[in-house]
Amino acid sequence: MHAIVQTDPHNNRALELQKVDVPQLKPGEVLVKIHAAGVNRADLNQAAGNYPPPPGESDIIGLECAGVIADPGDTQRTTGEEVCCLLAGGAYAEYAAVPEGQLLPIPDGYSLTEAAAVVEVACTVWNNLGQIAKISAGQRVLIHGGAGGIGSFAIQLAKAQGCEVAVTAGSAEKLEYCRKLGADMLFNYRQDDWSKELKNSVDTILDVVGGPYLEGNIRALAPEGNLITIAVQGGRKAEVNLGLLMMKRLTIRGTTLRSRPRKDKAAIVASTLEHVWPLLANGSIKNHIHATLPLAEAARAHELLDSGEVSGKLVLEV
Amino acid sequence: MHAIVQTDPHNNRALELQKVDVPQLKPGEVLVKIHAAGVNRADLNQAAGNYPPPPGESDIIGLECAGVIADPGDTQRTTGEEVCCLLAGGAYAEYAAVPEGQLLPIPDGYSLTEAAAVVEVACTVWNNLGQIAKISAGQRVLIHGGAGGIGSFAIQLAKAQGCEVAVTAGSAEKLEYCRKLGADMLFNYRQDDWSKELKNSVDTILDVVGGPYLEGNIRALAPEGNLITIAVQGGRKAEVNLGLLMMKRLTIRGTTLRSRPRKDKAAIVASTLEHVWPLLANGSIKNHIHATLPLAEAARAHELLDSGEVSGKLVLEV
Repeated sequence: MHAIVQTDPHNNRALELQKVDVPQLKPGEVLVKIHAAGVNRADLNQAAGNYPPPPGESDIIGLECAGVIADPGDTQRTTGEEVCCLLAGGAYAEYAAVPEGQLLPIPDGYSLTEAAAVVEVACTVWNNLGQIAKISAGQRVLIHGGAGGIGSFAIQLAKAQGCEVAVTAGSAEKLEYCRKLGADMLFNYRQDDWSKELKNSVDTILDVVGGPYLEGNIRALAPEGNLITIAVQGGRKAEVNLGLLMMKRLTIRGTTLRSRPRKDKAAIVASTLEHVWPLLANGSIKNHIHATLPLAEAARAHELLDSGEVSGKLVLEV
Repeated sequence: MHAIVQTDPHNNRALELQKVDVPQLKPGEVLVKIHAAGVNRADLNQAAGNYPPPPGESDIIGLECAGVIADPGDTQRTTGEEVCCLLAGGAYAEYAAVPEGQLLPIPDGYSLTEAAAVVEVACTVWNNLGQIAKISAGQRVLIHGGAGGIGSFAIQLAKAQGCEVAVTAGSAEKLEYCRKLGADMLFNYRQDDWSKELKNSVDTILDVVGGPYLEGNIRALAPEGNLITIAVQGGRKAEVNLGLLMMKRLTIRGTTLRSRPRKDKAAIVASTLEHVWPLLANGSIKNHIHATLPLAEAARAHELLDSGEVSGKLVLEV
């Protein structure tokens, strides 16, 4: 089969379509013939050498795809079934071996290409906001990077749960995009003092910035508030005042999806299917695709995402 | 009535027995004639001016007591009923006004004096280990300050839940005391590199040290581990690596009991009664009383607790 191979580990754009072996199935896995693969920021980190695949997983880039089952392996699935998949790696390819627990049906009304771009973001956002923070109607949720793939999905999910949604983004255009998705309070982080405006009022924060936002996030949280850090795009380290954490009874969590055991992923996928797939089918959540490129142009897709000019998702088609 | 009054706010030992008004009952409160009051480290912080009572609560020191109901107010309780009480303040006195939800029965086999010293520690430890961290059999729990009032109770509660218990303390004598309470792994923090020995292995940490231990606590935690900070005796601030929190999927929490709404306290008290009172009655958890002093000697009790030479609890008798 063909897959994207990084030909120079020191060059994050040295991504070429090459011939590689079709993956061997392990027990409980199915072989999926890939139609399209979603592009995620984590893929850029992997190409930059900062996010190696978990032990035992494919070293091909790509955390989500959609396609048809080409070989059901030892499972009860059927050849030809259309699926979308949460992967620990291997999506930038013609075929991927996928644990059965990480298969989802194509959401009603979605094309395979649209479905390929929704799995990772849906599982990540639902796991963090729904299962961990347990957001509920009437709560205030702050989403940093509201115009990104995670952010734009999180805005819609939080609104669908009846929350009031505050967002940060870096331009008036991005904030307008967030407003159209349902965001109630818009902060341009280049101009606005969001942590002062939101002081002691936010129940849950979904953060992708990390260190530079920690103090502001703690200030913005209401008593008993939750901060969930899922990326550290601005840096890893910051000073924390544990006395403040006590006084406000706050919780700070770091989470990742990719490194979790397959059993956990299967549970997250099942919960996402139950709670999020109906919201995709009825249009409460739309997953905007910014652009679709051929698989061979993975490097260009990464360049585009790195530019910061993307609102929504990029997809690679095989 | 008589109560301990701090006659000089700048002198933490200026604690004198003086005449003050008997507290007025608000709706849902009972008047308790106090037999004895437990001494807690938080009381020392209040006398030092660092831990003022929550708004609307008594400014008399003291977070727990036992005695008899002298006036049931508008509740269905009966005069003469023996109770022990979780308070936001007011225990160093002859009478206290107590919300009904913060009353507990005297544990089977306990004297009033013994009961006065068990409420705050039982509710604090159960809320953090049982309700928040949800410790369960087979997990490893690390308790810092194992020989203190909180620590010695936490060791026994974690053992009663089937956990493996690691502790830190500052002397061989204190560690021997922890061992007798059931601790499995003993670390003298003056000599041992506990965070290296426990690296990546601890499911839940109950911490009273704060800033200076944060890096070591994060190192000691296993994937998905919980750090709960309930005091910052060593300092409030520390650098935190949010990238590490993500990679290990850790949770850091700060909690306090005193500042919580009465509704929350009532729920904590009810859960503590259900889960911990049977362990007191059957002897699974013993609450060691180090010494009993007359109420008038509150200053001497504070001096004793400050000395660091106390293993177990101090009680003031009216």
